[in-house]
Amino acid sequence: MPRNQQVLLDNRPQGEAAVSNFKLVEVDTPALEDGQVLVRNHYLSLDPYMRGRMNDGKSYAQPQALGEPMVGGTVGEVVESRHPKFQAGDQVVGMGGWQTFSVVDAGVPGMLRKVDTTHVPLSYYLGAVGMPGVTAWYGLVKIINPRAGETVVVSAATGAVGSAFAALAKARGCRVVGIAGGPEKCAYATAELGFDACIDYRVHNDLKAMNKALKEACPNGIDGYFENVGGYILDAVLLRANAFARVALCGMIAGYDGAPLPLQNPALILINRMKFEGFIVSEHMEVWPEALTELGTLVAQGKLRPRESVAQGIENAPQAFLGLLKGKNFGKQLVKLI
Amino acid sequence: MPRNQQVLLDNRPQGEAAVSNFKLVEVDTPALEDGQVLVRNHYLSLDPYMRGRMNDGKSYAQPQALGEPMVGGTVGEVVESRHPKFQAGDQVVGMGGWQTFSVVDAGVPGMLRKVDTTHVPLSYYLGAVGMPGVTAWYGLVKIINPRAGETVVVSAATGAVGSAFAALAKARGCRVVGIAGGPEKCAYATAELGFDACIDYRVHNDLKAMNKALKEACPNGIDGYFENVGGYILDAVLLRANAFARVALCGMIAGYDGAPLPLQNPALILINRMKFEGFIVSEHMEVWPEALTELGTLVAQGKLRPRESVAQGIENAPQAFLGLLKGKNFGKQLVKLI
Repeated sequence: MPRNQQVLLDNRPQGEAAVSNFKLVEVDTPALEDGQVLVRNHYLSLDPYMRGRMNDGKSYAQPQALGEPMVGGTVGEVVESRHPKFQAGDQVVGMGGWQTFSVVDAGVPGMLRKVDTTHVPLSYYLGAVGMPGVTAWYGLVKIINPRAGETVVVSAATGAVGSAFAALAKARGCRVVGIAGGPEKCAYATAELGFDACIDYRVHNDLKAMNKALKEACPNGIDGYFENVGGYILDAVLLRANAFARVALCGMIAGYDGAPLPLQNPALILINRMKFEGFIVSEHMEVWPEALTELGTLVAQGKLRPRESVAQGIENAPQAFLGLLKGKNFGKQLVKLI
Repeated sequence: MPRNQQVLLDNRPQGEAAVSNFKLVEVDTPALEDGQVLVRNHYLSLDPYMRGRMNDGKSYAQPQALGEPMVGGTVGEVVESRHPKFQAGDQVVGMGGWQTFSVVDAGVPGMLRKVDTTHVPLSYYLGAVGMPGVTAWYGLVKIINPRAGETVVVSAATGAVGSAFAALAKARGCRVVGIAGGPEKCAYATAELGFDACIDYRVHNDLKAMNKALKEACPNGIDGYFENVGGYILDAVLLRANAFARVALCGMIAGYDGAPLPLQNPALILINRMKFEGFIVSEHMEVWPEALTELGTLVAQGKLRPRESVAQGIENAPQAFLGLLKGKNFGKQLVKLI
């Protein structure tokens, strides 16, 4: 059996996460038992939710166990199979974790899924046509549920979720405004991703400035907001929200390091008769087929052309992950494992 | 025509509202035009939303105009009618304002409604079987939508909304926990209003103490919260909320005086996958018939026996209103005008 390289959670962060929280090890891959499949992972997905798992506190998911490989989505190829539905050479998506090989109980529902790479590149199944894409779909379609002509806003606009959000919202006739960090990302958002406008939060770096920028970018106010960040941007959105605006709460990156970020004026939720809804997409598996079909179609039509940031080699996964938390990635953050 | 006593908004509050913001005047009642009705108001309803109207800022409703009688719900008796659907002696509910007589354009939908006092006292149409009752109904039924066995919590528990909320939630098989100020109100909540438990916020007057009290009163966590107050109580509720808990935002009294009350940890909305929804019941007229029918039935069956705080005479309306904002009322706050 091949040797397997793994990145383990070695210890929990005190405040900011650091490279020293992780540990790279090499182990043997065990012999397969009946029903198991050995997958050579080609790409590992890095996502903000992983930061939450590193903590021990109350959250929607179990904390990541110490001494175990970090959890994470992967795409790869079946090397060996003792499950009748899979065979060597199959391209698959699953939750292989931060490791170069995974042994998967392929019969457990949701563990491993074959994918077709005829029209969609393999790595996209970790992004636009995977969990981030479905996340954007759920927040837009099931929570914001916009009418044509409404204005919707998304933070972390050039990331995997934001890119998909823009394509899905444009397909519904919305005005789509992004918020991203830096002129390069903002230019990319409007030139490549279809955003009608994009606000640079590094320039508009406080409540007053963001409020002004949103007022200009959203002359008819804000009807829907997809929240990936938290903090003063959400406060500013509330100041520009129309009556009956909807907020899909998907991420609060800035708060993961332990410092709670207050919402300055929650009375605006009442004053504007708004709806806030937090969600995690893995609890809504019933929408995945419909969402993946639409996302795959948008990719095949060239209407969704997400960018990827690819780190090379599993040994660089921790550094790439910390960069993601600080917004250093540009598009979907992946680690290429082969 | 009789002389009409009115309380006008004379000037807007700077911070806390004060008696000096109001002015009592006496004017002639004008002669009726075709389609108009003259109503002798018997009771005026005092409600927290009126504080919001006194400000000039952005809110869901137009600010109360200066030099005009304060807006407000009233019940009374028709004195004279030039509208075919009303005649002298009819008992009616409407938005007569802070005055002893109202001239009403009775043909405008929603302005004036005849009521039946056979089983329901006239004043109840301003409370349990009126706007506050429907408010409780909407938040509970349309937003919280509880299943039997779930735990729901309401602040301002012994007020008109809270009383109705308790009866409606008990009818749905919920555990109902109230939050109120002082041992007398808490004892009344459990002895008379059907609450399973009631927490005294004067004793549990910070986040930590309220969190502990909620933990004891809600051993299975909180599935629904009806927010009438804002501030640290909402923060504490979030700490005890179950996954998929729903919050109906109806009032934020403590914030009306201008000081915004932050929500300390909005990331909990995401972590608990909660739903927050702000509403004002006058925008949901379609539910009123169903809600009023259920509320009237609960009153007739003796399952909803709300208490009333009655101030005597329109000249005492401002003082009673300020007391309401400070929680000095006990049950529905009314002003008796005759």
